[in-house]
Amino acid sequence: MRTTLRDVAELAQVSPKTVSNVVNGYIHVRKETRERVEQAIAELNYRPNLSARSLRQGRTGVIALAVPELDQPYFAELARHFVAAAAGHGLTVLVDQTEGARDRERLVIGGIRDQLIDGLVLSPLALTAADLDERTDATPMVLLGERIHHGPADHVVIDNVRAAREATEHLISLGRKRIGAIGSQKVAAGVTARLRLRGYQQALKSAGVSADKNLVASATRFHRADGAEAMELLLAQKPLPDAVFCFSDLLALGALRTLASHGIRVPDDIAVMGFDDIEDGRFSTPTLSTISPDKEQLAAQSIELLNAQLNGSAADRGPQEVYTNYELIARESTIGR
Amino acid sequence: MRTTLRDVAELAQVSPKTVSNVVNGYIHVRKETRERVEQAIAELNYRPNLSARSLRQGRTGVIALAVPELDQPYFAELARHFVAAAAGHGLTVLVDQTEGARDRERLVIGGIRDQLIDGLVLSPLALTAADLDERTDATPMVLLGERIHHGPADHVVIDNVRAAREATEHLISLGRKRIGAIGSQKVAAGVTARLRLRGYQQALKSAGVSADKNLVASATRFHRADGAEAMELLLAQKPLPDAVFCFSDLLALGALRTLASHGIRVPDDIAVMGFDDIEDGRFSTPTLSTISPDKEQLAAQSIELLNAQLNGSAADRGPQEVYTNYELIARESTIGR
Repeated sequence: MRTTLRDVAELAQVSPKTVSNVVNGYIHVRKETRERVEQAIAELNYRPNLSARSLRQGRTGVIALAVPELDQPYFAELARHFVAAAAGHGLTVLVDQTEGARDRERLVIGGIRDQLIDGLVLSPLALTAADLDERTDATPMVLLGERIHHGPADHVVIDNVRAAREATEHLISLGRKRIGAIGSQKVAAGVTARLRLRGYQQALKSAGVSADKNLVASATRFHRADGAEAMELLLAQKPLPDAVFCFSDLLALGALRTLASHGIRVPDDIAVMGFDDIEDGRFSTPTLSTISPDKEQLAAQSIELLNAQLNGSAADRGPQEVYTNYELIARESTIGR
Repeated sequence: MRTTLRDVAELAQVSPKTVSNVVNGYIHVRKETRERVEQAIAELNYRPNLSARSLRQGRTGVIALAVPELDQPYFAELARHFVAAAAGHGLTVLVDQTEGARDRERLVIGGIRDQLIDGLVLSPLALTAADLDERTDATPMVLLGERIHHGPADHVVIDNVRAAREATEHLISLGRKRIGAIGSQKVAAGVTARLRLRGYQQALKSAGVSADKNLVASATRFHRADGAEAMELLLAQKPLPDAVFCFSDLLALGALRTLASHGIRVPDDIAVMGFDDIEDGRFSTPTLSTISPDKEQLAAQSIELLNAQLNGSAADRGPQEVYTNYELIARESTIGR
């Protein structure tokens, strides 16, 4: 059963009103009384519920969205949908940039701004399931992306393995035989790069297309520069690949740039496939074929899950895992004009 | 001289402590006393200084950055620098998306989240000087961008007229004679589009290059789709332009896309110049020549101005106008490989 303000009052041997005063930060509480209440709050792991929060001049109406990088178009586009979806619920969004660093992500889930935000949506890159298990902060939270499945938190996700398999199958369907990949990373199982690599490998295997390890290029990050560099390495292979599946659109845009510099025709010589459907790929030359996650739906789903936690209707259920739709969009970089 | 808490107390005929209680939102103040104090605060346009704010359980450590669109790469890149610069001062950033709508911008400057934020940096698109003059909220504020010069607030800006002139001079220096422009808008004087148009016109005039009004295309917004559409219109002109200055990189990337679709060579047939230096333009084919504002400096300057207001060191000076550096970067879209 959930700890109530009354439980705290009983343990601290004060009136509920005094607990409320402490929770609300009023200064008219004697120091030793305050300390006793704070100790009881900690002992009972008490979290002010909605009405208690309301007492404390109401909820702040602010939720946090923590993403690795604000200027990655995928996250920028997601943030845009997220701010719009939140506004529809009267919520303001505080955007946080974690740089995908584990210590920053741990800070975010640790509730550094507990007083300020009602809830948190986090797109983790480095966080582990153990980090989440250790979490004591009770601020409602939803995780985005494919990391940390089956963890203790609500989770909105797309089926990365299946999407990557479909992307690779699209290249196979065009008759390509030497299909490379860009974006492999030495990361834990369950992390995006690993899932997309698995989908790529599954597709090759099912179709009986030979897999050449030399055609799988790693990328430190999923940025244009990483894609441009990785493509240079693939161009050193003999025979050349005739298609490349890049694990992000930015990687693919970097790869396209390298191919253009070498005068290699896309898709005639090498077909290129991305992942994310950022706006850039709709205007690049050639336009970029890609997997398009439904970012609007993803934003709406995460806000809904958070709202259910905020209004208490999530109390009786376990952590949810919700899948977001995606579609494959074939453009010039694979099917030409 | 700055109005003090003591002035308010004197006018309201209460103790300074009572004023402080009202300012800090304590509930133990009688209704009629509170109203008298609030009236005095309004009459004197009193703004709690740092120590008064500190009394009120201290500052929140949160500042707001309000930009028109989070997923415009220019603003996304700016937001990234801004969050980093703010973190350097121990400040967290709440990012707001105004859509460039005047009513949303008025809401932002009206102090809807007064209790939550210590200060505000706003990049306005639609706000007028009159809107700012009417502002009664005293939250420290800094404006970004070229709108509303000489207004009542601190302002960080780049010299748009000069930068646009240099961009156009670059095209002239390459021997181009029929130089078009994309991005003109029917907006008030002082707004970005007008300033960049003026710089373009000045450059043509100084160089004795004839200005053809039919070569100036308008753009509802500064997006890729607007640039692609505007370029189609310019391609209907006879003779064709041999260069185009686009008022944003996104417009230029859209224009490049249209030119590629028509098989027109860049820069051989038409040279293309952008403005903003977003990452996309460094990887597009061809790479995009542009004006590169120092976004990192811009973010640092705005945080510095805000900090000066927050710590009271700005009290004795009028509104500041600070200029950010920029440079012209010539890439393939004007000078070829």
